[in-house]
Amino acid sequence: MNVRTVFDLINTVAPFDTQMEGDNSGLLVGSPSREVRSILFALDVTGPVIDEAAALGADLIVTHHPLMFSAIRSLTDETYEGRLIRRLVREDISLIAAHTNLDGASGGTNDTLAALCGLVEITGEGFFRSGFLPEPMTVRAFADLLGENLETTVRVMGPEDRMVRRVGLCSGSGSSEWIRALEAGCDAFVSGEIRHHHALAMADAGIAAFECGHFATEEPGLAALAEALQNSLNHVECNVRVFVSAVSAYSFPRIP
Amino acid sequence: MNVRTVFDLINTVAPFDTQMEGDNSGLLVGSPSREVRSILFALDVTGPVIDEAAALGADLIVTHHPLMFSAIRSLTDETYEGRLIRRLVREDISLIAAHTNLDGASGGTNDTLAALCGLVEITGEGFFRSGFLPEPMTVRAFADLLGENLETTVRVMGPEDRMVRRVGLCSGSGSSEWIRALEAGCDAFVSGEIRHHHALAMADAGIAAFECGHFATEEPGLAALAEALQNSLNHVECNVRVFVSAVSAYSFPRIP
Amino acid sequence: MNVRTVFDLINTVAPFDTQMEGDNSGLLVGSPSREVRSILFALDVTGPVIDEAAALGADLIVTHHPLMFSAIRSLTDETYEGRLIRRLVREDISLIAAHTNLDGASGGTNDTLAALCGLVEITGEGFFRSGFLPEPMTVRAFADLLGENLETTVRVMGPEDRMVRRVGLCSGSGSSEWIRALEAGCDAFVSGEIRHHHALAMADAGIAAFECGHFATEEPGLAALAEALQNSLNHVECNVRVFVSAVSAYSFPRIP
Amino acid sequence: MNVRTVFDLINTVAPFDTQMEGDNSGLLVGSPSREVRSILFALDVTGPVIDEAAALGADLIVTHHPLMFSAIRSLTDETYEGRLIRRLVREDISLIAAHTNLDGASGGTNDTLAALCGLVEITGEGFFRSGFLPEPMTVRAFADLLGENLETTVRVMGPEDRMVRRVGLCSGSGSSEWIRALEAGCDAFVSGEIRHHHALAMADAGIAAFECGHFATEEPGLAALAEALQNSLNHVECNVRVFVSAVSAYSFPRIP
Amino acid sequence: MNVRTVFDLINTVAPFDTQMEGDNSGLLVGSPSREVRSILFALDVTGPVIDEAAALGADLIVTHHPLMFSAIRSLTDETYEGRLIRRLVREDISLIAAHTNLDGASGGTNDTLAALCGLVEITGEGFFRSGFLPEPMTVRAFADLLGENLETTVRVMGPEDRMVRRVGLCSGSGSSEWIRALEAGCDAFVSGEIRHHHALAMADAGIAAFECGHFATEEPGLAALAEALQNSLNHVECNVRVFVSAVSAYSFPRIP
Amino acid sequence: MNVRTVFDLINTVAPFDTQMEGDNSGLLVGSPSREVRSILFALDVTGPVIDEAAALGADLIVTHHPLMFSAIRSLTDETYEGRLIRRLVREDISLIAAHTNLDGASGGTNDTLAALCGLVEITGEGFFRSGFLPEPMTVRAFADLLGENLETTVRVMGPEDRMVRRVGLCSGSGSSEWIRALEAGCDAFVSGEIRHHHALAMADAGIAAFECGHFATEEPGLAALAEALQNSLNHVECNVRVFVSAVSAYSFPRIP
Repeated sequence: MNVRTVFDLINTVAPFDTQMEGDNSGLLVGSPSREVRSILFALDVTGPVIDEAAALGADLIVTHHPLMFSAIRSLTDETYEGRLIRRLVREDISLIAAHTNLDGASGGTNDTLAALCGLVEITGEGFFRSGFLPEPMTVRAFADLLGENLETTVRVMGPEDRMVRRVGLCSGSGSSEWIRALEAGCDAFVSGEIRHHHALAMADAGIAAFECGHFATEEPGLAALAEALQNSLNHVECNVRVFVSAVSAYSFPRIP
Repeated sequence: MNVRTVFDLINTVAPFDTQMEGDNSGLLVGSPSREVRSILFALDVTGPVIDEAAALGADLIVTHHPLMFSAIRSLTDETYEGRLIRRLVREDISLIAAHTNLDGASGGTNDTLAALCGLVEITGEGFFRSGFLPEPMTVRAFADLLGENLETTVRVMGPEDRMVRRVGLCSGSGSSEWIRALEAGCDAFVSGEIRHHHALAMADAGIAAFECGHFATEEPGLAALAEALQNSLNHVECNVRVFVSAVSAYSFPRIP
Repeated sequence: MNVRTVFDLINTVAPFDTQMEGDNSGLLVGSPSREVRSILFALDVTGPVIDEAAALGADLIVTHHPLMFSAIRSLTDETYEGRLIRRLVREDISLIAAHTNLDGASGGTNDTLAALCGLVEITGEGFFRSGFLPEPMTVRAFADLLGENLETTVRVMGPEDRMVRRVGLCSGSGSSEWIRALEAGCDAFVSGEIRHHHALAMADAGIAAFECGHFATEEPGLAALAEALQNSLNHVECNVRVFVSAVSAYSFPRIP
Repeated sequence: MNVRTVFDLINTVAPFDTQMEGDNSGLLVGSPSREVRSILFALDVTGPVIDEAAALGADLIVTHHPLMFSAIRSLTDETYEGRLIRRLVREDISLIAAHTNLDGASGGTNDTLAALCGLVEITGEGFFRSGFLPEPMTVRAFADLLGENLETTVRVMGPEDRMVRRVGLCSGSGSSEWIRALEAGCDAFVSGEIRHHHALAMADAGIAAFECGHFATEEPGLAALAEALQNSLNHVECNVRVFVSAVSAYSFPRIP
Repeated sequence: MNVRTVFDLINTVAPFDTQMEGDNSGLLVGSPSREVRSILFALDVTGPVIDEAAALGADLIVTHHPLMFSAIRSLTDETYEGRLIRRLVREDISLIAAHTNLDGASGGTNDTLAALCGLVEITGEGFFRSGFLPEPMTVRAFADLLGENLETTVRVMGPEDRMVRRVGLCSGSGSSEWIRALEAGCDAFVSGEIRHHHALAMADAGIAAFECGHFATEEPGLAALAEALQNSLNHVECNVRVFVSAVSAYSFPRIP
Repeated sequence: MNVRTVFDLINTVAPFDTQMEGDNSGLLVGSPSREVRSILFALDVTGPVIDEAAALGADLIVTHHPLMFSAIRSLTDETYEGRLIRRLVREDISLIAAHTNLDGASGGTNDTLAALCGLVEITGEGFFRSGFLPEPMTVRAFADLLGENLETTVRVMGPEDRMVRRVGLCSGSGSSEWIRALEAGCDAFVSGEIRHHHALAMADAGIAAFECGHFATEEPGLAALAEALQNSLNHVECNVRVFVSAVSAYSFPRIP
């Protein structure tokens, strides 16, 4: 199995041509013909993640966020991104990013987040999902539930004693999607980053906002992609190992 | 004392012509010649804030964030902003916004935040400030200090056991200023909203990030402006009352 | 009957979604749910027109020309437009503008102008109309006829002794439409404002131009809209009164 | 004396490098080295003006308005402008345009218009001039005076019985300059073409507007340039004849 | 037969509406109704070509390259292009350019070039053509063949001893089309001008490049158009003579 | 000695901040702190040049033309440029490009070319140089001289029997500089690539054009830079070896 084959498998789950204009999902570093024996899934390429890949003998890293989101004109040790890309090349590790194509995919980032919010009767399209809590609960109680399920700090914007019944959500920095929560009749909205003016507009509309952090709302979707790939591989009894990064979100690099 | 006079006093503290290109600080609603007897200071104009102003008999609201940040072509009850502006006109309340001109001012938003972070030897220019903690403390301890001083939830991005000594900061959604924290040799950076890719770059540089919420990092600066104005007024024994909004950040409108 | 209902009736006659790109026709000030008992029609919102509306007890003004044609970022007494909009809000008068959607409508601005020019066999599309004079007459005689029918000063561009038989027209500042008069075989063209270089090109093509003033060519179309609305209201025996402004085109504001 | 020499003389009176961005004043057709024996001055190049030049034996036409204001990519008999340029080339007549450089020049278009309005104590810069009437008169009386002095039809926008004392003006399609009339404390404004929304704003400001036609406000400036050039030539006893076009403004072409 | 008729005949062979965006093919100078007795075909309008046309009594020049490719705002003897256009007008010679519409036409510039390269089984679309040499030959031998057939100097970019079998080509400055040669499996590419970075990329792909000069690759196509037109005229026994310019490509003007 | 030191030495000869806007000269691949023992100079990075560097043990390649002239968003084996950059990283070879900063430098690309043309009394600025031949010679003879000195094929545009005395030049694709040759009174112009319309304009102006190929006009300047660097190194008795590429300009890659 080579990099191209893995790319094609991911493409089945989260087609790359569905990515948003300006995104940079796809095969970013490496060679389509490179043989793959181990794959590491991580939200981002960072120094500690490359260390982890090297330690695991991974030939391929699959991330959510792309490198070279801004196009580059040099590749040197003088920049953070330059150092990351040069290490990937030198260690012969390929890199595939599945970003906005994964956000919108069935079973992707937002579907995974909806499940972790404990929602039922989930609907939605694009990057937005909404659903019902099995039983209404207070804003405070729902914030506690989110903190536990997503293993994160939750910032609440709205009165803590209101009741929550219908929840809209968009992972990552998706607070502009709140308007669809309004259209859907939600009384709560969950996202990774919530812009202040969106929070004000939500308050005016009687919607409580729950800011859960970028990593906590997106990483589970990446892990779900890893699992989906593992299942595909098991199906063909392929001898490729799949890992999900165990490195903390914003861990510091080793002191060399 | 009329609206123009208050405008001029604020202009002395935070000159309006220092605002960033594209900002909309200034007299936004009302009449320069309108007499002023009471002023309400608030981070934002919202429905509950106008209720508060009306209850207090305030003729003027001074906020940090402008209305009409995006220029408008109609003024109807069909939009949130339209409803706010129409209420201001009907209740004859003027509105002045001091936004990026206050962020950079001496004694303004960022200087106030730096003091609340407990920093000493504070320096900086533009919207960035940095300083030292009197004694080094762990990331975890500094996060607790911030939570207490700013009365907010703090999201920590970085290892909790590292020591913090020199702190950079920028209020609101100012995480792009982290690069100046790097240049200044900081090991911590405080802001209201922190973009994920900035947090990754900070981690690579060994800087711990503390996301404290937009309101919590900016509201104190507005209160400081109110106090500065009160002092000016006391100086001239002027019979104008100054209030700081006691409404919660993202409170919901009253059910009519 | 409320503002929304009047909007819908006008929309039947002159659909708002036919307006040109960049135009600002529609409900510009007020509230769709506001009850309407009296409506004042005028070419423009001006101080004297608002005086007139207030005196008549009108809840709604319908004009041809929009306010906020250039989008605004403040609403103060410091600008002419700001003063107009603030008075409308304070006196709780809504404002609907029917501009380019009325120009092109059947029975709208240009059809009305064509009738006042005394034309027969009228055809045309968009903002252009053409037709025949019942009997040929000289340029001078046609100018006199226009002056009388439109109650205006007429500026003639072309030789006064030529005969006019087929006439093209476009109300307001519509002289770029002269090219369609050429295509239609006209020997005369009528508009409100005629650009000099259009007049030169018309002369070269043997077309006499008649500049009749912006107000004189457009106000009759607005009055026709008022009449159409009155007829609709009569049909449903609705108790809403309709007025057409009697204020002179460029009257000065009262000295306060 | 050749075309270049005439160009240089005009350049002394109305420097070509003072023209507005986007204007096309200068030597537009012909050859700098072409000998000149007769010059015809006219507001515009038109078919009848070229006829006139040919009849007079003029080697050079000097106009106010440029040709090729919009740049061209072909030169054929299929367009009005193409026919004009081709005739100039075939009859070996050069063309110089002095447009916005003449408008602003001392003794140029606007100074000439100010004198024809009967003003005294004339001041101004750019394209704007203002001055006083020797004695106050009514709007109606001033309109009659303009009609007589400029030999034109005058459209009045404002109440006819107001008194006029201080007058601002800008020739041609210059009504956006009205704001400088306001700043100068004028109660009247004269121009060739007056846009409707400028007229409304003037009425609000208590300024009466007088629309006198493009040709009538600009042609006198061109004739003044002819006279200035004649004086220069007389000074050097040069044997070059100077004519001012006697063709009507918008005369039709001869029937071939 | 007039200019319009010739235009229509060329349009049949190389439809003008197939020209590339930004091109300026068409009737550029003259009059559609001008009678035509002789036509001169040339790659470009130059001074010597107009001399030649005048000597031949040609009423019309048909070229490949347009004049006024950049739109003009004056027409004087001060520029090379101005002098050319003015001579055409004065000598009453019309000008038609058939540029990118001829490049892509069946039997046009590129089909003619393909035949001169000695290719068989020619295919292609747009401006690209490819075909096979009847027998493989070395790069050196093919360069000699091109030099002889196109009467030009050939610059070879690639190893001289490689074998050439399948050849791609695009006339003029068409080296960006090399990528289609790669797609078509060619081992050689012929053009008039070859950019350095295209040559590098071709070398990497194992394609030898042959730069034959702009004139040498395009002039034969123009001559073919002349012949096609002659055939059409013979067919209708029309008494119009057709010439192909015998002036050298970059000949100098006569010393006057 | 490390990469940064070499960069600084080149910067002394051809300052990088003099490069044209949009150029990409500088350290493009590698690490400033990398130790350098051997340097290879070549006009371009190509596969054969990297082979050569590897064989020579070069740690640094210095070229004239940059990579990543168009910014990139991925780095894979799927593109020519991607393969080149990846090989450089894997073999730990740094890359510095000195492009337009070298073209204009004293002793740089164009000064070197001027010397190879046999010129004396050389002057010029920017990318243009001009000078005199010691003795006048015919166009044909000068073309032969260029062919011999630059080891290239020369395409002549102009009559072969004219005499050449003063020569202007610009290396590479520099034919737009011909206008400065006209201003300088040259009768010949030398460049690497000459656009057809420039050649036509030169012929009209009586200037013969000599197209010598991109590589042949620029490679000598790069070799001169290598020599200048060698001299600097000798001066400090530094143990770094300098090579100039011996690979043919457009050589094909080895068959793997």
